[in-house]
Amino acid sequence: MSSSEFFAKIDPIKYEGPESKNPLAYRYYDKDQMVMGKRMEDWLRPAICYWHTFCWDGFDVFGGGTFNRPWHKLDGQEMAEAKLDVAFDFFTKLGTPYFCFHDIDIMAPAADIKEHTNNFAAILDKVEEKMGETGVKLLWGTANVFSHPRFMAGASTNPDPEVFAFAATQIRQAMDATKRLNGENYVMWGGREGYDSILNTDLKREMDQLGRMVSLAVDYKHKIGLSGPILIEPKPHEPTKHQYDRDTATVYGFLKKYGLENDVKVNIETNHATLAGNSMEHEVATAFALGIFGSIDANRGDPQNGWDTDQFWMENMEITKTMYHIVKNGGFETGGFNFDSKVRRQSIDAEDLFYGHISGLDALARGLLCAVDIMEDGRMPDFVTERYAGWDGEFGQWLLKQGSLDEIADRAVKEGLDPKPKSGRQEYMEGLLNQFV
Amino acid sequence: MSSSEFFAKIDPIKYEGPESKNPLAYRYYDKDQMVMGKRMEDWLRPAICYWHTFCWDGFDVFGGGTFNRPWHKLDGQEMAEAKLDVAFDFFTKLGTPYFCFHDIDIMAPAADIKEHTNNFAAILDKVEEKMGETGVKLLWGTANVFSHPRFMAGASTNPDPEVFAFAATQIRQAMDATKRLNGENYVMWGGREGYDSILNTDLKREMDQLGRMVSLAVDYKHKIGLSGPILIEPKPHEPTKHQYDRDTATVYGFLKKYGLENDVKVNIETNHATLAGNSMEHEVATAFALGIFGSIDANRGDPQNGWDTDQFWMENMEITKTMYHIVKNGGFETGGFNFDSKVRRQSIDAEDLFYGHISGLDALARGLLCAVDIMEDGRMPDFVTERYAGWDGEFGQWLLKQGSLDEIADRAVKEGLDPKPKSGRQEYMEGLLNQFV
Amino acid sequence: MSSSEFFAKIDPIKYEGPESKNPLAYRYYDKDQMVMGKRMEDWLRPAICYWHTFCWDGFDVFGGGTFNRPWHKLDGQEMAEAKLDVAFDFFTKLGTPYFCFHDIDIMAPAADIKEHTNNFAAILDKVEEKMGETGVKLLWGTANVFSHPRFMAGASTNPDPEVFAFAATQIRQAMDATKRLNGENYVMWGGREGYDSILNTDLKREMDQLGRMVSLAVDYKHKIGLSGPILIEPKPHEPTKHQYDRDTATVYGFLKKYGLENDVKVNIETNHATLAGNSMEHEVATAFALGIFGSIDANRGDPQNGWDTDQFWMENMEITKTMYHIVKNGGFETGGFNFDSKVRRQSIDAEDLFYGHISGLDALARGLLCAVDIMEDGRMPDFVTERYAGWDGEFGQWLLKQGSLDEIADRAVKEGLDPKPKSGRQEYMEGLLNQFV
Amino acid sequence: MSSSEFFAKIDPIKYEGPESKNPLAYRYYDKDQMVMGKRMEDWLRPAICYWHTFCWDGFDVFGGGTFNRPWHKLDGQEMAEAKLDVAFDFFTKLGTPYFCFHDIDIMAPAADIKEHTNNFAAILDKVEEKMGETGVKLLWGTANVFSHPRFMAGASTNPDPEVFAFAATQIRQAMDATKRLNGENYVMWGGREGYDSILNTDLKREMDQLGRMVSLAVDYKHKIGLSGPILIEPKPHEPTKHQYDRDTATVYGFLKKYGLENDVKVNIETNHATLAGNSMEHEVATAFALGIFGSIDANRGDPQNGWDTDQFWMENMEITKTMYHIVKNGGFETGGFNFDSKVRRQSIDAEDLFYGHISGLDALARGLLCAVDIMEDGRMPDFVTERYAGWDGEFGQWLLKQGSLDEIADRAVKEGLDPKPKSGRQEYMEGLLNQFV
Ligand SMILES: [Co+2]
Ligand SMILES: [Co+2]
Ligand SMILES: [Co+2]
Ligand SMILES: [Co+2]
Ligand SMILES: [Co+2]
Ligand SMILES: [Co+2]
Ligand SMILES: [Co+2]
Ligand SMILES: [Co+2]
Repeated sequence: MSSSEFFAKIDPIKYEGPESKNPLAYRYYDKDQMVMGKRMEDWLRPAICYWHTFCWDGFDVFGGGTFNRPWHKLDGQEMAEAKLDVAFDFFTKLGTPYFCFHDIDIMAPAADIKEHTNNFAAILDKVEEKMGETGVKLLWGTANVFSHPRFMAGASTNPDPEVFAFAATQIRQAMDATKRLNGENYVMWGGREGYDSILNTDLKREMDQLGRMVSLAVDYKHKIGLSGPILIEPKPHEPTKHQYDRDTATVYGFLKKYGLENDVKVNIETNHATLAGNSMEHEVATAFALGIFGSIDANRGDPQNGWDTDQFWMENMEITKTMYHIVKNGGFETGGFNFDSKVRRQSIDAEDLFYGHISGLDALARGLLCAVDIMEDGRMPDFVTERYAGWDGEFGQWLLKQGSLDEIADRAVKEGLDPKPKSGRQEYMEGLLNQFV
Repeated sequence: MSSSEFFAKIDPIKYEGPESKNPLAYRYYDKDQMVMGKRMEDWLRPAICYWHTFCWDGFDVFGGGTFNRPWHKLDGQEMAEAKLDVAFDFFTKLGTPYFCFHDIDIMAPAADIKEHTNNFAAILDKVEEKMGETGVKLLWGTANVFSHPRFMAGASTNPDPEVFAFAATQIRQAMDATKRLNGENYVMWGGREGYDSILNTDLKREMDQLGRMVSLAVDYKHKIGLSGPILIEPKPHEPTKHQYDRDTATVYGFLKKYGLENDVKVNIETNHATLAGNSMEHEVATAFALGIFGSIDANRGDPQNGWDTDQFWMENMEITKTMYHIVKNGGFETGGFNFDSKVRRQSIDAEDLFYGHISGLDALARGLLCAVDIMEDGRMPDFVTERYAGWDGEFGQWLLKQGSLDEIADRAVKEGLDPKPKSGRQEYMEGLLNQFV
Repeated sequence: MSSSEFFAKIDPIKYEGPESKNPLAYRYYDKDQMVMGKRMEDWLRPAICYWHTFCWDGFDVFGGGTFNRPWHKLDGQEMAEAKLDVAFDFFTKLGTPYFCFHDIDIMAPAADIKEHTNNFAAILDKVEEKMGETGVKLLWGTANVFSHPRFMAGASTNPDPEVFAFAATQIRQAMDATKRLNGENYVMWGGREGYDSILNTDLKREMDQLGRMVSLAVDYKHKIGLSGPILIEPKPHEPTKHQYDRDTATVYGFLKKYGLENDVKVNIETNHATLAGNSMEHEVATAFALGIFGSIDANRGDPQNGWDTDQFWMENMEITKTMYHIVKNGGFETGGFNFDSKVRRQSIDAEDLFYGHISGLDALARGLLCAVDIMEDGRMPDFVTERYAGWDGEFGQWLLKQGSLDEIADRAVKEGLDPKPKSGRQEYMEGLLNQFV
Repeated sequence: MSSSEFFAKIDPIKYEGPESKNPLAYRYYDKDQMVMGKRMEDWLRPAICYWHTFCWDGFDVFGGGTFNRPWHKLDGQEMAEAKLDVAFDFFTKLGTPYFCFHDIDIMAPAADIKEHTNNFAAILDKVEEKMGETGVKLLWGTANVFSHPRFMAGASTNPDPEVFAFAATQIRQAMDATKRLNGENYVMWGGREGYDSILNTDLKREMDQLGRMVSLAVDYKHKIGLSGPILIEPKPHEPTKHQYDRDTATVYGFLKKYGLENDVKVNIETNHATLAGNSMEHEVATAFALGIFGSIDANRGDPQNGWDTDQFWMENMEITKTMYHIVKNGGFETGGFNFDSKVRRQSIDAEDLFYGHISGLDALARGLLCAVDIMEDGRMPDFVTERYAGWDGEFGQWLLKQGSLDEIADRAVKEGLDPKPKSGRQEYMEGLLNQFV
């Protein structure tokens, strides 16, 4: 089978409604449906990732590739172009508006820095053309500065400054490409920006190096007029033992330390959230609370496994709880839901790529509808508002803005304050949630 | 048995050297031994905690108290004084220089805010007297604003502002007491400053409330001239589902957000570090790198259990790795090693309290000696220095301080940079560590 | 408020259908609804537990009781009878057919073995009377041989044989009571049957002691004609560092070792399953595969917390996946769904007990309906059947029952076997599941 | 550099004693030193594994190979022979007596079942020759039935019986080879014998298929006179979501189910133990208690990471605690310590392989010496013996062997048993352990 025929037997995916039993149709994702005044597509802004879906051959640490994709048998620019065709064929059949890529995902492999520059440039022309033909847009671009052996000890955080400079080169080119392709964000995932052993590591130096690289990228973003934010994608570990941007709160501290909090936001991945010991809804709510919510890499981990499984996310309750914070805060600005999800190594057929993405996108659409129902019903958000109402009153505001510790304590003693516990109603709220999911 | 006789049959603990087989003697802790120019006691600054050792009766969630301490059979001020006697008897026999307490640990139980004020004042006179008699000093004081049912939904982060005010009152008094007793730090542990369910919680409000309380405490510290820092003790969860100050990096972001990073440092607990998914050495190295290292709650969790077991910490390798960062950074300023450790529920005898603390303190002393050996040998720190030496050269400094992304990339392409991987030597470093532990 | 008025303002809970917004009504639990030929109540066999709901006062390791239940202010037999009244009032209003208890949950506290015998006997008369009046039945009884300090080092596995004998006494009485009250199963949860430290433990002795106790109970069951099975409830740890019956597969090995596999089954708790690193559906499927499925303690843990939170279980997808295995295997024989679930410490009102149990029971009912839909649709079970169909053919049967390794290998080489991978269709199956939940 | 020169600059490793600072010398491993009547080598029986050390090129899921081994640039039989040379050069320089391999580790890659047979046979002649020349022995052999895509859904547990037959063929040949090379054990690691999703899996069928394969191997072992046991290596998951032989207790139940407990033992890997939520010492103690202790794969995981890192194991305390159970039970019969450990991906030099293995073997030797000290001192084992002494008395024996539940309970009531808690002395024992490590 040639690459061009890979998805030949699959027709464009249509919306058929919740009662459909067709696994190659959407049951919830109806992109033009208006939801709270916005098209569903504009709420979700779904993107397909290049790496898992078109680059990975199904290998894992315990065994070789299983997928036998026809384009994996080709080389160089020919391989890159075949992959591009098949990718845009996929995007088009799914009807999703965005895609995302790392530089090396799309290009012919390069042996050195000059070849990298040339090969990347060569494919960009083709990518631009494809985007023009299909209307598919770029949610974000990024540079892969973790796979090549030169990055084995990190890119920005490498003990060798030449590696930093090499990474800077790739980042400059990937930012240029993102600008050229009207990408709406630029992502930095820390890959190997951490350590395998603290024994051979100078933590402080490495954090400063990382702060420097992000600062350089921020300056460059302004210089070239890349309009969207830079997004850091938190992850606690893997492949490293410890990665410096372990979760949203950690990234926030890092941004404050280097004065980057106005230009950089987070790209939160579900699987990374749970690997870090946080719930996904926590990460999203925290990012909004700290003003750094950017985008989402939609996937899930396995609750019993401790590595990044990047599975398709289809749990309606979990998605709804996350979507609730997104809807409540008005949705994405420049971000979207990128499917950083891969079919299992046993899911070797072309159809499996469709099953995963259709069900994953449907699950997001359903979660959106559930979250909107919760908002419109009002009981859940209202309960929370009322619970804290005391803080909006005179006493609460005085505590927050005026009284000193001494004054507060004196007043408390004088008034003989004896606050009585009120039920937190957790089971009520959980039951209420179940009325919507 | 009366409280005063509780430790009667145990003599003051002496240093007998590494060959001693006496479980009631120190094998490594020789407080006046000079180590890198400082007395061992001045390096370790060990403190005994009141709560686990004198307040807890051995209960857990699945069963009642097992300890049968004589003072637990008394009430009110009589109980408080008996406990005080036995505590200082213990401190004296161990020969440790510091202790730590929460307000309610030392006082007669109080029914309301006025009684709290009175009962706390009543015991403080006695505490001061005991300290004078024995020379035992206060490493830090704190207020327990998490045990009483009024704090079930948090203290500072409570939806009810009256609870905030109540907590503020206790904190003011505990800070006053710490000042009066020449305490060298003041600690805030977040107890229930988090949430059990995000469904009923306004994360942003709660973080702001917490920021406000710490700001109030910082102002008050300056007002009363409490010289040491305020210390926040990170913990990721338990009893809450999520606690806002989950680890050192998170606390750093919180401090930066509220402008508190110059007045507040961290009190790192080993067991909390590992519950948060971090190694203890990571937490300590991070705190030094971020400039917020304060003090340590020395204990350990169980590697197979997911709750705060607060066991005595006796693993020489783990301690040495942590101590190495402390020694390398010059040791504590105002902090110390507080034994936030409890004997197991089955360790019901007076002797068991001694076995735990003696072996725990000995383990710290041994770890100190090992870390000093590593520093003096020099191979481990030198390896790291040399590994990053390139960053101290012209090119590294130019990358860090001058070049823009564009300039860096241009130079890299022009010079055809092709950095070659160098071994990270992790096994060599691990083997080297084994020459010292 | 007196105990008898505790639930006064709450009317019996009715089924109002999925569209109801009334948090004090069932939306799915319609006990007489026929589902695949059986009443919904007969599929679920729901039971309310005494301990969490009527004994616990809301304390945790970090703070005291929050619940202020009126019967907790009483003592002795009066307390026991008030608790009994309120419990049966609750069962009746919920309309649930079963309850479960530990001996000490229902009786007046006892100081010694004789008082235990007398106090337990005294309340049993009342319990029997209540059961007669209300028609509420006993799903299972058990003995609490872990809370009293005498059991701090285990009951059956205690180093002191007298503790074993004391526990045997309680077990005998609890089995007698279960028989008298027509209890349908007898449960043994390992509480402290494990170790806190392997350093002071003889694992082999302890496992043999535990094997002995279960054997004694099995013999006694036959002697008194207790018709249902003995159920062991697996848990990996907590309060112990390690508990011997960590999960279903471990219990199976234990039963085979002591020849108990025909008389003993498992009572699987959701929260214990996940603490042990297993999914709940895995535990249930494993128990059916090994022929030891007994009953379920329905609850959930928190995915980010490492202790037994015993929360109400309301995740439809997780419940459906578990229920699917139950339905596929024909449902419970003598077991049922016991609500080993507790309201959160902040849920202090009488209503909260209803919210938790109503939503929890509704979630089970909904999961049952979903699982039945899956079975009736047939695509999911059929996919699995067809996937393994080769094993039912001649070659598969020959491999399983006849060929030697030599013969198999010879045939494989001779025929040049070259099996081709077939897609495992995981995403398809996950999407299919989403058509039903 | 050619393969034959790969270790050229490294001289045979010598024992230089604990004071040596030479990282290319043993400090504790002195193979002929007599320890409790046995040579140290005979206690430890160390083996080097082929796969991590000679086959792996340093790739991980996030990036390509870093090692640049010269033999990885060759093909077919030439590659296999170059690898063999370098491997035996390594074994000889380390002075370790054993090695271990999977079939495909040592042979030229094969495209089909016949080529597999031929290529495996071709290298076996060379292996036998090398063993004869060097005196290096085979601790165990095994078949890799998990890496090839045909095994993506398991080998024995595959839904396709032809895959079972293919695996059987490899196993037969690997067993034959093990017999021919005088291998002392034959290992079966479950690789992909589990599931990625329970949704598409028939658990019961798969367990029966696995039971069948192990039974076939046991029969074949007897047929060909392979003298040592078959060893199952437990692992809970990875690459699968769940693997059927998750830990020692689970394997025991599996063996009992299929009547295999007399012919099969466990090969316990440290990293697998901890991934399963067990301590290594627990797994070893459990295996001895159940009579199925076989061999050890020595390595460690990272306490903060949830995947199989297979690092070199150098923690003296952990090793000593494990070694204590081995020494107490008389040591290995046919098993040994296989270094299933790999240098980090950043440890790219030939020296790094030596640093890892030397320090790893030294750590085992040191742990052995510590464990022997503990045994000879006697206080630790004696404490445990005395703790359970009551069970050896008349009452304990009567409980264990004679009394019925009724008789025991009657006697307990009659005698008014009131057992008093005795301290478990955990901190004393932990302190005592610290006198030896
Ligand atoms: Co991602
Ligand atoms: Co991921
Ligand atoms: Co602490
Ligand atoms: Co703690
Ligand atoms: Co339970
Ligand atoms: Co539980
Ligand atoms: Co292994
Ligand atoms: Co491993």
